[in-house]
Amino acid sequence: MEALGRGARQASRLMAASGTQARNRALESTADFLEQRREAVLQANAEDVQAARTAGLSAALLDRLELNADRITVMAAGLRQVAALADPIGAIEDVRAQPSGIQVGRMRVPLGVIGIIYEARPGVTADAAALCLKSGNAVLLRGGSEALHSNLAISQCVRDGLERAGLPADAVTVIPATDRALVGAMLAMSAWIDLIVPRGGKGLIERVIREAQMPILKHLHGVCHVYVDDRADLDMAVAIAYNAKTQRYGTCNTMECLLVARDVARPFLERVGPRFQEAGVELRGCEESKRLLPWISAATEQDYVTEHLAPILSLRIVAGLDEAMQHIEQYGSAHTDAIVTADHPRAMRFLREVDSSSVMINASTRFADGAEYGLGAEIGISTDKIHARGPVGLEGLTTRKFVVFGNGQVRA
Amino acid sequence: MEALGRGARQASRLMAASGTQARNRALESTADFLEQRREAVLQANAEDVQAARTAGLSAALLDRLELNADRITVMAAGLRQVAALADPIGAIEDVRAQPSGIQVGRMRVPLGVIGIIYEARPGVTADAAALCLKSGNAVLLRGGSEALHSNLAISQCVRDGLERAGLPADAVTVIPATDRALVGAMLAMSAWIDLIVPRGGKGLIERVIREAQMPILKHLHGVCHVYVDDRADLDMAVAIAYNAKTQRYGTCNTMECLLVARDVARPFLERVGPRFQEAGVELRGCEESKRLLPWISAATEQDYVTEHLAPILSLRIVAGLDEAMQHIEQYGSAHTDAIVTADHPRAMRFLREVDSSSVMINASTRFADGAEYGLGAEIGISTDKIHARGPVGLEGLTTRKFVVFGNGQVRA
Repeated sequence: MEALGRGARQASRLMAASGTQARNRALESTADFLEQRREAVLQANAEDVQAARTAGLSAALLDRLELNADRITVMAAGLRQVAALADPIGAIEDVRAQPSGIQVGRMRVPLGVIGIIYEARPGVTADAAALCLKSGNAVLLRGGSEALHSNLAISQCVRDGLERAGLPADAVTVIPATDRALVGAMLAMSAWIDLIVPRGGKGLIERVIREAQMPILKHLHGVCHVYVDDRADLDMAVAIAYNAKTQRYGTCNTMECLLVARDVARPFLERVGPRFQEAGVELRGCEESKRLLPWISAATEQDYVTEHLAPILSLRIVAGLDEAMQHIEQYGSAHTDAIVTADHPRAMRFLREVDSSSVMINASTRFADGAEYGLGAEIGISTDKIHARGPVGLEGLTTRKFVVFGNGQVRA
Repeated sequence: MEALGRGARQASRLMAASGTQARNRALESTADFLEQRREAVLQANAEDVQAARTAGLSAALLDRLELNADRITVMAAGLRQVAALADPIGAIEDVRAQPSGIQVGRMRVPLGVIGIIYEARPGVTADAAALCLKSGNAVLLRGGSEALHSNLAISQCVRDGLERAGLPADAVTVIPATDRALVGAMLAMSAWIDLIVPRGGKGLIERVIREAQMPILKHLHGVCHVYVDDRADLDMAVAIAYNAKTQRYGTCNTMECLLVARDVARPFLERVGPRFQEAGVELRGCEESKRLLPWISAATEQDYVTEHLAPILSLRIVAGLDEAMQHIEQYGSAHTDAIVTADHPRAMRFLREVDSSSVMINASTRFADGAEYGLGAEIGISTDKIHARGPVGLEGLTTRKFVVFGNGQVRA
């Protein structure tokens, strides 16, 4: 592991100094290799799938693991899309002259070495490697053991793509073993890894928080709210609440709790309730909402802190904006929260005071997404406050250093 | 501790929602209280100084601990200066329309609760409280036990200043006990503290890295280099090298190692050597430099990684730019490094490829400082890569959340 870390660090220096064209050529060559070696990649994947079947993996996990010709085409297209993005590296911003005569600015540079720990989806290998490579970083990838052959076949395409572009193959390395102790070794490598990105379930994330000796970019969970104010346009409120819950159930930006101002609770719930009922969404509400919608079940305290990721929606009637914001603070996860209102001062208070990574006025929480935000590519959604918050694009894999232009200035 | 954390969290919500004027009024009132209660603060400080004398503290520590009427005037002036800075909070930047019709931007908001752990200088109490308050955060301050009475007297002025401005006193709390176990408790409080800022010696910093369960903003050490290229103006190179070392010996941005290109080593060292000799700076050089300056001592490997913080300078002759950058990578601390050269491509390579928080062309490393960079105020210098790198102003105590303006958009 130490040798892999050292190799990644050396490669990261060459990547940081590399030109835009070389990095783009590496991405395009990788896409070409993936398509040329489609059969070999699928064969490696078939080995993984076979072993996983024997081991009795669930159908859902098998589906995430299995590649086919189309999925490889999508992967290659993704690489070419990343190649087409603007280079985030080297921009010098905010250069200002200071009284001493020096000019001080900030240059955007790669972070160095990124460590990514993820689970059984081999598509992440190409995707994460592409974003790290584009942003001038080196990356150590530690995927799930179930996908090892697939990941090695894919990363070999990236490594060959790098070499064809005159860049170091060690800029992208899949750790070629998968025992769990390796994760611990990786989390201790603060000398070689500048940022660790865990992509996986709660157990993995908690382990990383506990053990990592370097900064973490993580996504914990999304308990997202829509608050329907008594000054909301009710047609709009119904459309947004319905979309935020039902457009997809399993995503982190799906609404998990609907808050409704008392003064519009009856007309609003009488309209939105049947819509949810038709869609098969189970509502779990407070006492007061149960009086308006007798068919729903009672919400527990636990429901209000739960990311259901399913056709289940918590519901609560509140006095107004202040109680809604208190609820969001107490039960929410600071991921994405929206208000529906026509009242400008209330909208702006919600925007300012709700301390979440995305705060929205009159829009569905489902928009909290790198593509919808125009970031071009997304490495994940961060629920941390520092460095990168919310959907993270290439910028989240970079940092800014101070640059000083002088012509002989010394300090008095 | 739990109750203090909870109180700070509650206060942070009110601070985040507070107006610019209220926060400025709190700072100005604090300055007034400090001046009105000068005698009481000095009396509290005299208690600390008395106890420290009895305990046999060193003269240097006593000097850092002791306040006088002038120091309180300086403290009050500092508070008024922070009040006069622009409010970093609430700015909405980069709002752009997306194809879906939503407008997406980023709003600058406070981090929440900052924890600061520092040593015996009571001036830090006023200073750090002011920066946290200005940026809309709450702060938990854990100063050294030697300064407890002073810190409590100063923080009482801030708390009264907050209340006079209609803001919560709990936005600024000095932890009223000083046993070392409390630091451990503080470092575990990830639910209540969003960012921990250790300001102190290496032992403290290492403990914080080991134990903290929340993000850290830290300053490790500064092994800063000046590289004199063979295309340098030698007058300029002498002036910069001399200033970078001798203007102050004990600061983190002081040059600790001078690298000289072989082709100009003789004329450059023959000129700068005697200057350092006169100033009483001990030079420790490589074999080759010892042949040119026979009076200097030999550098060890240890010297090249040492932050001397004293009139001692490591020296090495290198072949040119590449070897200089290799040396900086291997021995440096990624704090501040400068090149002196008239060659534009080399200057730009150094700027891009040296991975330090400040990289300079033709200027003294001593400029790496919040005031010299025009940041207005400085909470410290970060040697971390993520979130804030280099001198950290008010911006480092803030974060940006995504804000979305819609008028009923739902996701297709």
